[in-house]
Amino acid sequence: MDYDRYDRIRAVQWQGDHLRLLDQRLLPQEERWIDCAHSADVTQAIKDLAVRGAPAIGIAAAWGVVLAAKQGQPLEPALAMLRAARPTAVNLMWALDRMKARIVAGADAAALEREAQAIQDEDLAANRHMGELGAALIAAHSGVLTHCNTGSLATAGFGTALGVIRAGVAAGRIEQVFAGETRPWQQGARLTMWELVRDGIPAKLIADSAASHLMRSGVVQWVIVGADRIAANGDTANKIGTYQLAIAARHHGVKFMVVAPSSTVDMATASGEDIEIELRDSAELLAVAGRRTVVEGADAWNPVFDVTPADLIDAIVTERGVIERPTAKAMQALFGR
Amino acid sequence: MDYDRYDRIRAVQWQGDHLRLLDQRLLPQEERWIDCAHSADVTQAIKDLAVRGAPAIGIAAAWGVVLAAKQGQPLEPALAMLRAARPTAVNLMWALDRMKARIVAGADAAALEREAQAIQDEDLAANRHMGELGAALIAAHSGVLTHCNTGSLATAGFGTALGVIRAGVAAGRIEQVFAGETRPWQQGARLTMWELVRDGIPAKLIADSAASHLMRSGVVQWVIVGADRIAANGDTANKIGTYQLAIAARHHGVKFMVVAPSSTVDMATASGEDIEIELRDSAELLAVAGRRTVVEGADAWNPVFDVTPADLIDAIVTERGVIERPTAKAMQALFGR
Repeated sequence: MDYDRYDRIRAVQWQGDHLRLLDQRLLPQEERWIDCAHSADVTQAIKDLAVRGAPAIGIAAAWGVVLAAKQGQPLEPALAMLRAARPTAVNLMWALDRMKARIVAGADAAALEREAQAIQDEDLAANRHMGELGAALIAAHSGVLTHCNTGSLATAGFGTALGVIRAGVAAGRIEQVFAGETRPWQQGARLTMWELVRDGIPAKLIADSAASHLMRSGVVQWVIVGADRIAANGDTANKIGTYQLAIAARHHGVKFMVVAPSSTVDMATASGEDIEIELRDSAELLAVAGRRTVVEGADAWNPVFDVTPADLIDAIVTERGVIERPTAKAMQALFGR
Repeated sequence: MDYDRYDRIRAVQWQGDHLRLLDQRLLPQEERWIDCAHSADVTQAIKDLAVRGAPAIGIAAAWGVVLAAKQGQPLEPALAMLRAARPTAVNLMWALDRMKARIVAGADAAALEREAQAIQDEDLAANRHMGELGAALIAAHSGVLTHCNTGSLATAGFGTALGVIRAGVAAGRIEQVFAGETRPWQQGARLTMWELVRDGIPAKLIADSAASHLMRSGVVQWVIVGADRIAANGDTANKIGTYQLAIAARHHGVKFMVVAPSSTVDMATASGEDIEIELRDSAELLAVAGRRTVVEGADAWNPVFDVTPADLIDAIVTERGVIERPTAKAMQALFGR
């Protein structure tokens, strides 16, 4: 399949002696690259949200360890510094644990460089595999709707939910792509649309609240989203608005697909009820694009994530395989130890 | 009931020799008033969207006719000019038809001034009556969610859906108010929150896509919205996002109320399928607060309204009475001729 045509973006680029990161805060107005010569630069880029998306953060951090090793810095403090950059990011911990295991095993800088490259290459390969698995579920002449940004910018490349869309477009199954703008951060408007335009995939942006009207018009057969955490029963935490899309999809007979690497599955969390939803500063809703839009004295309620119950999900796609109509039993069979 | 405490805003104010309009384009950053000395000034304010909300537009236009009459202008051209300011606005035509009927009957400037005042007073009275009818449906200790702006700014005062909320708060039945920001125009964020803060009603803004997560939390018992047109079977066209809220409300066992004056009911339209949905310029979604947020070359799909089927509506509240679980038969009984 001609993936390369639909996969031109690499936001995390190892240059042999430094790491180049595409500054996602400035997209789409500006494509500015940040050159990180030291692990401290990588830490700062993670802290500042110049790099975002759980897999992309983990990969960048792995390269941060390589930079420290090449410059003969003590590695334990570098690991600790990188780990503290986004303390709640699961993939960051996973990638640093993997680098640490190599360090403990006595790996030199060259071996650590190979490990970081492996983490990056495996993420891309997993995404392409998930893309094929997900696209195979989609009938010809389909339209799809996605939410937030789950693409090349958030990963080593290709993306998770957006990877399925890339694969479905490449396979000629997907004919129309719609992206919700994803208030309040506008990742769909700013980042997903940028990726789709860059890759020449015809797409239309919609207001998040137009999704049901779109589904009623009959042009969308699948909603395809990523995940921040998948519980042992298949309940899925993801960007705020995902749950609302799942309800609307079921109401209209539209199918709902979650796409995420197996590292997103948390078998220690029994169900979505055990997932705490982060509430962020109300200021994010009270201003738009840096400009105050709401009267002084107003308050806002700003949950960042929501939980979609497994019974609203038609398919969970991981690089280990697909679970249709997820249940705790099916999840245990694929992800249990 | 102490309405005045919760009803301090008048966006359309007759000053005896000119009309003062609160410029809604600048809210909440700036409270600037426009003084209209001539009917042409009123026409321009309607064209420029300085005044918005169907009832408010109709009232302003009626005062525009009064200005022309007081200045001895020929009235037919003034009527035509005002009518052309927003050619699709039903309430504008209704108010101008009413003024024209008085002109045809030989009314002088003083009589026309009384007619315009009557249109304005009747709108406020209708809103207060609907407020009582709607609030009576709401149990004590309730939370409510509203969408767009249906308040004093959009009417002679008090508002339709927001009028029910004002009445419910005044009656001590509503304890929590949530407002969706209403992308892309942000009427909820800019206007509804401004009204609620001005009137001292505790409220929280939410992203439109957070509504389902909010309902799941159990703090909301009613969704209360306005209407742009209600068909003969109860299907209701309203601001984009309304339909999505109705689906989510039904999913969570939350009740759904539509509040609108009887002039919004269009018995000549059999059902929502006969209502054409206006698509507006994609540019409205590609920029936020005047700043381009989406990559050049991107497209958007921007429907302004959607249709909520009657079977998702628990109550339609008008000044003529309440229809619970609306059907064509019940609509005919209340609104048929």
